[in-house]
Amino acid sequence: MMAITITAFERSPDGGKGLARDMRVRWALEEVGQPYEVRLVSFGAMKKPEHLALHPFGQIPTYEDGDLGLFETGAIVFHIAERHAGLLPDDENARARAITWMFAALSTVEPPILELANAKLIEGDKSWTAQRLPLVEERVRSRLVQLSRRLGEADWLDGAFSAGDLMMVSVLLRLKSSGLLDDYPNLSAYVARGEARPAYKRAFEAQWAVNTSKSPTG
Amino acid sequence: MMAITITAFERSPDGGKGLARDMRVRWALEEVGQPYEVRLVSFGAMKKPEHLALHPFGQIPTYEDGDLGLFETGAIVFHIAERHAGLLPDDENARARAITWMFAALSTVEPPILELANAKLIEGDKSWTAQRLPLVEERVRSRLVQLSRRLGEADWLDGAFSAGDLMMVSVLLRLKSSGLLDDYPNLSAYVARGEARPAYKRAFEAQWAVNTSKSPTG
Repeated sequence: MMAITITAFERSPDGGKGLARDMRVRWALEEVGQPYEVRLVSFGAMKKPEHLALHPFGQIPTYEDGDLGLFETGAIVFHIAERHAGLLPDDENARARAITWMFAALSTVEPPILELANAKLIEGDKSWTAQRLPLVEERVRSRLVQLSRRLGEADWLDGAFSAGDLMMVSVLLRLKSSGLLDDYPNLSAYVARGEARPAYKRAFEAQWAVNTSKSPTG
Repeated sequence: MMAITITAFERSPDGGKGLARDMRVRWALEEVGQPYEVRLVSFGAMKKPEHLALHPFGQIPTYEDGDLGLFETGAIVFHIAERHAGLLPDDENARARAITWMFAALSTVEPPILELANAKLIEGDKSWTAQRLPLVEERVRSRLVQLSRRLGEADWLDGAFSAGDLMMVSVLLRLKSSGLLDDYPNLSAYVARGEARPAYKRAFEAQWAVNTSKSPTG
């Protein structure tokens, strides 16, 4: 029985290269071994009342399981991690720290990365962008320096791999094409370690398949 | 016994008007009726190894309780909400939805608000800022429209007041001085409803007292 349904882009802006946010949910589901169905939505459908009822901000992914409908990648990954073994440690304090890294990824590390993406995409044609980009990149770098120092030579942020690492690697992946990660070899290796996980690879292939074949399921 | 210790700015950039992020943690602790101690840190001390061991990004607030040290406002508020009644509903699905609103506040609504703050503060003196501000404000407005539609005439985002509302009201409060909220009367009323809660008022007064008297506790 396939109880869980998530939504994903019918046509992902990145062509299925793992940057759309359904990737984070797919990865989490693969880590805990839960099957899922995917409903593809077009940009038009995302702004229609039916989708807005599920996701008030008109985005993907969403998560449906029986009566429950959720949005927000962080909340969905946390919901999966709470219900199934594999993404949060049993020890109470270690669990709280793993959850801390989830929030850190989404509310401390990702915002300057989104700002950089906005500067390049939404404001790419503006007269000020060439001059402004270095300032925005500097805000990203200041977070990377701090994260790199904390990670040090460890494999993961707090002992074993957790939902915190899943989220942090997912956020850092957005920087790959910018080259900014190259100055932080331990962060590059950390991201590569995430990408090398079998669950990540299965999730990536499922997302890629949507964009190449338009097949409806992961 | 005062077991919980949080950190806050020795000198808050807003002069104690409730915008520093320790406010969110104070509010949560007041909602659940937990006493706490406050350790004030200077901007210099925030960048020192001792504080960085607790908060890798060199910010406030942090949360200490026995062996456990946490950072990230979202994670701290969630930790408090999980442990004490008053911030998360008992019903499992309603609880997952309340957590969704916490993440929505921090990773969907707050990033454009932070971008607007950066545009005004960090880039306030740049040649492009006057021309650029309307674009950034538009990104904030697009979120406010969606949030306003979802809230409608309800008092809170999903039935009873929850940690999701605590976080969303806290995020929206940052917009007060911009006047942007004025175009969305239901959101303005929602924020006012948050501010009218006795727990919010106690937290606000405790934060204000630090900045007026430099007294060391909340």
